[in-house]
Amino acid sequence: MKVPVLSDEKIIDSWRKNATPWTKAIRESQIESRTLVTNQAIVEAVLSVSPHTVLDVGCGEGWLVRTLVEQGKEVMGVDVIPELIEQASQLGRGQYAVLSYEDLAEGKLSRRFDAVVCNFSLLGKDSVNNLFGAIPHLLQPHGSFIVQTIHPVLGTGEHPYFDSWREGSWAGFNNDFSDPAPWYFRTLSTWVRLFSTNGFILQELQEPIHPNTGLPASALFVGKLQTAD
Amino acid sequence: MKVPVLSDEKIIDSWRKNATPWTKAIRESQIESRTLVTNQAIVEAVLSVSPHTVLDVGCGEGWLVRTLVEQGKEVMGVDVIPELIEQASQLGRGQYAVLSYEDLAEGKLSRRFDAVVCNFSLLGKDSVNNLFGAIPHLLQPHGSFIVQTIHPVLGTGEHPYFDSWREGSWAGFNNDFSDPAPWYFRTLSTWVRLFSTNGFILQELQEPIHPNTGLPASALFVGKLQTAD
Repeated sequence: MKVPVLSDEKIIDSWRKNATPWTKAIRESQIESRTLVTNQAIVEAVLSVSPHTVLDVGCGEGWLVRTLVEQGKEVMGVDVIPELIEQASQLGRGQYAVLSYEDLAEGKLSRRFDAVVCNFSLLGKDSVNNLFGAIPHLLQPHGSFIVQTIHPVLGTGEHPYFDSWREGSWAGFNNDFSDPAPWYFRTLSTWVRLFSTNGFILQELQEPIHPNTGLPASALFVGKLQTAD
Repeated sequence: MKVPVLSDEKIIDSWRKNATPWTKAIRESQIESRTLVTNQAIVEAVLSVSPHTVLDVGCGEGWLVRTLVEQGKEVMGVDVIPELIEQASQLGRGQYAVLSYEDLAEGKLSRRFDAVVCNFSLLGKDSVNNLFGAIPHLLQPHGSFIVQTIHPVLGTGEHPYFDSWREGSWAGFNNDFSDPAPWYFRTLSTWVRLFSTNGFILQELQEPIHPNTGLPASALFVGKLQTAD
């Protein structure tokens, strides 16, 4: 059965095909905006909330897990793609598990962390909406949920500015990549509402600046789990 | 003594000169983005928090006060420009006072409201920073602070994206306007931080869409006063 072209399933289908070149791209620092701006931004954002334990959701080949472990944090990484978790495990320095966002939404991980981080890993529609509802159950009281994503106002490009599926692209990547994953575009309004309606106080909306353009390279949200009144 | 070209004082100086054409522009619906998009957006945002009492800070000639009074709200409007308050008072339907943001920051208005609204009226640097700190004292517990402003990511134009003074312009307005006020540009990050560091939970960041461009015509923040834990 064919996977629909613009769907949560297709995202996983595409990433499964690109796990090997992706691991190479990250480990060889091939993505300039990451090495110049966004890697440091997400590390600093996580450290700023002083967590002892961190869950990296959609951890990929594990660079952020390793970096945070080096900073003395106890870190677990989860990803739906077995090959990426295999690549991550080979370098060790962290706990890893193959878990989908649906697994997390269904409560298949019964631990609580001081912080949960998603670094450019919230790409889908329903999968992301459901994951947001599950994050509070993965956090300690007053825990932090930190999300870095494409800046909506800059990322909308030539498209009108409303929530919708967008086709993917590997423009700028080498020929080892194929069949790019689609992604679900959300406006800033929608991102803010995802935090506020799922029990988070949005404490920061950072906009790390790309030195070459003077414009934000990403949007980075820091939400704090609100206590029940 | 000459007022510095890019300063909080200069903003007031300029608006004082343009009170008459401004009143005419608003009352004759000369500003398309307002009549098409942002007027309705701010009215709906205020009504969405169901306030009984509202304070309109920087109310100008009073259109929003009048509109909210028509919706059954008890509304007070304050502005630093005496001529604008005079124009507003002549049409009645609301309480008005000439008060500067410094007056509010110093506690010269000793009432509390269910909602405080600033519609394109937060233009300065220190005056705005200080006003944010004063708003909690003008609000009932769990009161709302609603701010509509130029969308930073679209409003930055050709300038690099960081907080800074910008020169004003009356482009698109008629020749009755002169000596445009400067304004202090803030990034989205800074706006969000102004809310979170002054005791507000940011519940909404609305981006009312302009029908002609498909892009946000403004950024509209809805903050709720956080209770002390």
